[in-house]
Amino acid sequence: MSNSILLAPGPVQLHPEVQKILSMPMIHHRTPEFDGILKSVLQKLKYLFQTEQPVLMQSSTGSGGMESLLINVMNPGDKILCIVSGKFGERWADMAEHFGGNVHRLNVSWGESVSVDAVTDFLKNNPDTAIVMTQACETSTATAHDIQKLAAIVSQTPALFLVDAITALGAYPLPMDEWKIDGLVAGSQKAVMLPTGMSFISYSARAWKKVETCKSQRFYFDVRKEFAANKKGETYFSSNVPLIRALDFVLTRIQEIGIDRHFQQLHRRQQYTLAMAKYLQLEIYSKSPSRSVTALKVPVGMDGTALREHLEKKYELTVMGGQDQLKGLILRLGHMGYITDQHLHQTTERLAKGLIDFKIALNLEKVLQQSEIWLKENPPL
Amino acid sequence: MSNSILLAPGPVQLHPEVQKILSMPMIHHRTPEFDGILKSVLQKLKYLFQTEQPVLMQSSTGSGGMESLLINVMNPGDKILCIVSGKFGERWADMAEHFGGNVHRLNVSWGESVSVDAVTDFLKNNPDTAIVMTQACETSTATAHDIQKLAAIVSQTPALFLVDAITALGAYPLPMDEWKIDGLVAGSQKAVMLPTGMSFISYSARAWKKVETCKSQRFYFDVRKEFAANKKGETYFSSNVPLIRALDFVLTRIQEIGIDRHFQQLHRRQQYTLAMAKYLQLEIYSKSPSRSVTALKVPVGMDGTALREHLEKKYELTVMGGQDQLKGLILRLGHMGYITDQHLHQTTERLAKGLIDFKIALNLEKVLQQSEIWLKENPPL
Repeated sequence: MSNSILLAPGPVQLHPEVQKILSMPMIHHRTPEFDGILKSVLQKLKYLFQTEQPVLMQSSTGSGGMESLLINVMNPGDKILCIVSGKFGERWADMAEHFGGNVHRLNVSWGESVSVDAVTDFLKNNPDTAIVMTQACETSTATAHDIQKLAAIVSQTPALFLVDAITALGAYPLPMDEWKIDGLVAGSQKAVMLPTGMSFISYSARAWKKVETCKSQRFYFDVRKEFAANKKGETYFSSNVPLIRALDFVLTRIQEIGIDRHFQQLHRRQQYTLAMAKYLQLEIYSKSPSRSVTALKVPVGMDGTALREHLEKKYELTVMGGQDQLKGLILRLGHMGYITDQHLHQTTERLAKGLIDFKIALNLEKVLQQSEIWLKENPPL
Repeated sequence: MSNSILLAPGPVQLHPEVQKILSMPMIHHRTPEFDGILKSVLQKLKYLFQTEQPVLMQSSTGSGGMESLLINVMNPGDKILCIVSGKFGERWADMAEHFGGNVHRLNVSWGESVSVDAVTDFLKNNPDTAIVMTQACETSTATAHDIQKLAAIVSQTPALFLVDAITALGAYPLPMDEWKIDGLVAGSQKAVMLPTGMSFISYSARAWKKVETCKSQRFYFDVRKEFAANKKGETYFSSNVPLIRALDFVLTRIQEIGIDRHFQQLHRRQQYTLAMAKYLQLEIYSKSPSRSVTALKVPVGMDGTALREHLEKKYELTVMGGQDQLKGLILRLGHMGYITDQHLHQTTERLAKGLIDFKIALNLEKVLQQSEIWLKENPPL
């Protein structure tokens, strides 16, 4: 158990202090102790989102957060441009359609980032577009889109720009206010470094105007209720006490480290992984690799699903495979959560051993040397 | 910290083993280890719900579960009879209205259980009623409704009978199949003895028919997706790993104890609390006291909110006050979760001391003797 390594793109390894906090005796959410924690967390979430706007918490998975972010600002019939570059883009577009959106899918080849020009053209030809929505990082392909450029374009139009940053927020810069992002959603089990169970959303001032007026049906996910409760120092529904308590630790830690340095630490893990891929003779799948997760191509002819299961069973290394059209073809390694240099090095070792078991000619000793040298030459930030 | 007692009607005190499980290292939900846990939990939930039907899990608070239970079987325009006997009845009726239901509120005085005759009459006069919904226990007033009788009546009509059993399921008998309940929702932080963050729902066979056909908008809360995923041994959205892992422990424990004996253990806590109320010269608020939570009337003229805060600050005893029209007038003591005889006795002691601080003439020594005698004469089951 203690020997196992979890490097999925969520859920992530927990900081030992988070594990300790999760095991604390329960307290009620209507107590002075919890009041203090909630106040602290709501303030510090703004630092994480890099916004002056309120950040709201919900008990749900990331998909619940995606639904909430969308339905609070959409009217049935709204023209919506959905950037679809993988499984989660598909899910969000399906959602928008389900709730009555007039959905236009901008399909992007898996592993590629969306063409900014294509979005610009669409908005020129469709000035009545109400919403543009995209993943910051499409988790299924480990691909990042250029959110800064997209936001710059969309913010010049009446359309709202909604970003699913579930596998991105807290992992690399997405300064909401500075870039003029209108809606941003994060998930607890990713760069927020907690277990699954909460989502976090924030809206720009112009998005809030639509929140107040839009006609969509919403009760559990009605952010107006939650915001009103937060102003009174409460959550509207029962508070997720253990996660919010642990969140206070995580956010305090990120503030102490400084968000830029925190981002650099994750970036270093990505850089290590890209270097490691070379030592292991594995190609990078994405043409626009995300800093939060890396997809490595499984060597041609190898059964990636079998490799993944082998790594899990023999080496206690949990990484993710591909989904849908990428099933068996890639391995995805997350860079979020509690990851030490020892975890990085051991991941390389276990991956190398697994590949050798699958008849790939690798010099294990040399790979390990290369890993050690990299970690020495690029010390922790 | 270790001296504090939490006896709210949720969240509840956690079993020490649950606390330990919550602090375990994260595992991914797509691993053989988690597959085994999920399978076990989905099976054992049926034992808790006393049903042969599938029981589905969602990452949400109880209110999210109430929304899900409702919208998966309601069509806009459906005639719905909502039994409203407190804050949560009001919330559910508001929800039904929000999602387009033709809502008829059967208002019941707070603290009273609904008249079965009134429901019978309504159904006679409104044979087109599609849904009847009620709390099993209205948490805000600690009042139980006669679910068995209500189910017997509603099941003879085409209407579906939905029961919010968030402060009831796992605390006292609500055999879903035997009583012919069509929909049942439970929450993690109540008699399921976990932190807040999950809800559990189940439908009768005739309710499932409507799930398949009803026209309501639903994505995150679409139980068809979750049920299909469960059949493949997965959850549709990211699994709430720590809570599901702890749930396996809780359900295994209840099975080992036996659900009837488990219910008796909770019943004994209620009986103790009713006896204690006498020793403390406090009246019971509800005319139909629930076995999951007891509401005690604050002595006339005393500020209940101040008393509650005093108990919290001076004696580290968390109990709940009243809400809305009952604010300051009652104290609510929960009987769910991990509660030892020592907790019961110390609760009596702290309550007595608090009341004495508020100038109530009580003989502390005598009260403690009475408590000890009760616990001795009624040993744990």
